[in-house]
Amino acid sequence: MTFPSPIAWRPDGRIRLLDQTQLPTEERYLDLATAEEMAEAIRSLRVRGAPLIGIAAAMGVAMEAGRAEAAGSDGMSRVRAAAALLGATRPTAVNLQWALSRMLARAEAAAGSGAGLAGALRVEADAIAAEDRAMCQRIGEAGAALLPDQATVCTICNAGALATGGIGTALAPVYVAHAAGRRPSVIVPETRPLLQGSRLTAWELTRAGVPCTVIADAMIASRLRRGDVSCVIVGADRIAANGDVANKIGTYGLALAARAHGVPFYVAAPSSTVDAATPDGRAIPIEERAPDEVLTWGGRRVAPAGVAVWNPAFDVTPAGLITAIITDRGIRGPTAVAGAAPVVTAGA
Amino acid sequence: MTFPSPIAWRPDGRIRLLDQTQLPTEERYLDLATAEEMAEAIRSLRVRGAPLIGIAAAMGVAMEAGRAEAAGSDGMSRVRAAAALLGATRPTAVNLQWALSRMLARAEAAAGSGAGLAGALRVEADAIAAEDRAMCQRIGEAGAALLPDQATVCTICNAGALATGGIGTALAPVYVAHAAGRRPSVIVPETRPLLQGSRLTAWELTRAGVPCTVIADAMIASRLRRGDVSCVIVGADRIAANGDVANKIGTYGLALAARAHGVPFYVAAPSSTVDAATPDGRAIPIEERAPDEVLTWGGRRVAPAGVAVWNPAFDVTPAGLITAIITDRGIRGPTAVAGAAPVVTAGA
Repeated sequence: MTFPSPIAWRPDGRIRLLDQTQLPTEERYLDLATAEEMAEAIRSLRVRGAPLIGIAAAMGVAMEAGRAEAAGSDGMSRVRAAAALLGATRPTAVNLQWALSRMLARAEAAAGSGAGLAGALRVEADAIAAEDRAMCQRIGEAGAALLPDQATVCTICNAGALATGGIGTALAPVYVAHAAGRRPSVIVPETRPLLQGSRLTAWELTRAGVPCTVIADAMIASRLRRGDVSCVIVGADRIAANGDVANKIGTYGLALAARAHGVPFYVAAPSSTVDAATPDGRAIPIEERAPDEVLTWGGRRVAPAGVAVWNPAFDVTPAGLITAIITDRGIRGPTAVAGAAPVVTAGA
Repeated sequence: MTFPSPIAWRPDGRIRLLDQTQLPTEERYLDLATAEEMAEAIRSLRVRGAPLIGIAAAMGVAMEAGRAEAAGSDGMSRVRAAAALLGATRPTAVNLQWALSRMLARAEAAAGSGAGLAGALRVEADAIAAEDRAMCQRIGEAGAALLPDQATVCTICNAGALATGGIGTALAPVYVAHAAGRRPSVIVPETRPLLQGSRLTAWELTRAGVPCTVIADAMIASRLRRGDVSCVIVGADRIAANGDVANKIGTYGLALAARAHGVPFYVAAPSSTVDAATPDGRAIPIEERAPDEVLTWGGRRVAPAGVAVWNPAFDVTPAGLITAIITDRGIRGPTAVAGAAPVVTAGA
């Protein structure tokens, strides 16, 4: 499978980003030079997906350290300011805070040892990306074992190559099964309001040669009722200590429908998604986004003036509706993941 | 409440139709002169909603009889051709076939008695519309008794004034409670792919001064989980003899979520929606519409080329998930409605 990388270093130290808001009609790349530009890209969902946000933020911090070094200015204060800015972009995904904490810890260690800050942070950001890539692969291998041949997998939103540093989380088992010639296919709910399903998931699956069927979100329950869906696999933005999972809005309804029809419901996520400090789903902050995401399309208004809007970007699926969580450390019961809290690697 | 009528006779015998595909941005009216134009309007959803489709088709047949009379040609053959054309426009709503059967029976009776065909059919079409208006009012009064003061009602699609000859079916209880000063409000799922919720329901509620909150369909389960929704009220396109209900795609998922959270789930429909000849939901034909409804928006493609689409316009909610059916004959248990099969009035 050959995907365009959603994020990469340029030789000049800038970061090249695939602008995901322009897909599927345009494959447009942006070259970002500052943490502020990266923060805008994260807020505007030009780069999105819990694991990829963590990578993007880490790269943004490393880029600022490089700029400080080039300008001969104080790297540590620049790094702290960048981390604060990037950490405030989106509240729900835990990977963002996790990656930034790791970068700050590495920066302190480098400052203490007198090592070059910019070089150390570049190595750390690359390590985060490489680990994510490896985690995706392990998730894929663990999850593929759960799929029958010619499996039909239902997902939601995009938890694929466009959301990670590798082959994705929810889609990783599909890609591994596809590479093994086991002919999986995917049911893709479009995922309103921002259509990450039809715009992104259908795009990368089509690129990879995996057949997919796009449906409106309201068709999910009917589709599961037909009896031809082997299992559901979704990603996660944060997993609480008790196994409750925050993920794209619509995941909870999908889980209810899966339960009603006896369809296994799997969450696929790297260990860094588990937040041992969050006891349960009620403690997860849920981002509410702008009303216009629901009220307009391509500049055209689709609801009358004067209506209220409720636009949460995520929901919480209780652990009791989750069959298992597919992690880079194997398949776990939803309440057994808290032990798999992320381990900060000691550095490069 | 003052709504623009979605359908009305013009003095010249043509039919004036509010083009619902242009709402909420434009209030555009079309003057239709032939049954073919009416068939196109029904297929294109310029006029939609199970009860209103029945009225529109009946008026289309009466209009053709009028044209035949004016041209001095054979009215009966024109009426039969119009009924066949209009009856083939949409398969799921039973009201369409019911209204056309009633018009054909009236035409035969008029032909047998030597009475003027055009006049008899115009009276019959007007009777269907007037009966629908009265049924809406009775549904509203029966349903309003189920609502607490300041009720928050969740619906889906549009089963309001724009879908009927009166104040709607699902929205009728809301309008009756609103008129009584009981301050109801409505949660309005946008209802992809065609957005009848945000475009039509939010539009008519706003016109009537009823507060509403638009959400994406994927937010329904989370909203019901919050605990502030008093009940769900939806319309119906066909009710099988066992109480299974076909309605807009997404209704089934909404019913599952309501059940999960102990929220009463009501179906509001005139008696003509009950089809005693359909034993259960499996026997209801479900219309599948064009892939482009899901794949494009305002001419812009939102999914890559090469993907498959599944686009059923309706789903079936099993009787077991339905708390009660609100009919013009009062509140019934879902399995008790078959006795309320429509009675064909003996004529005007």
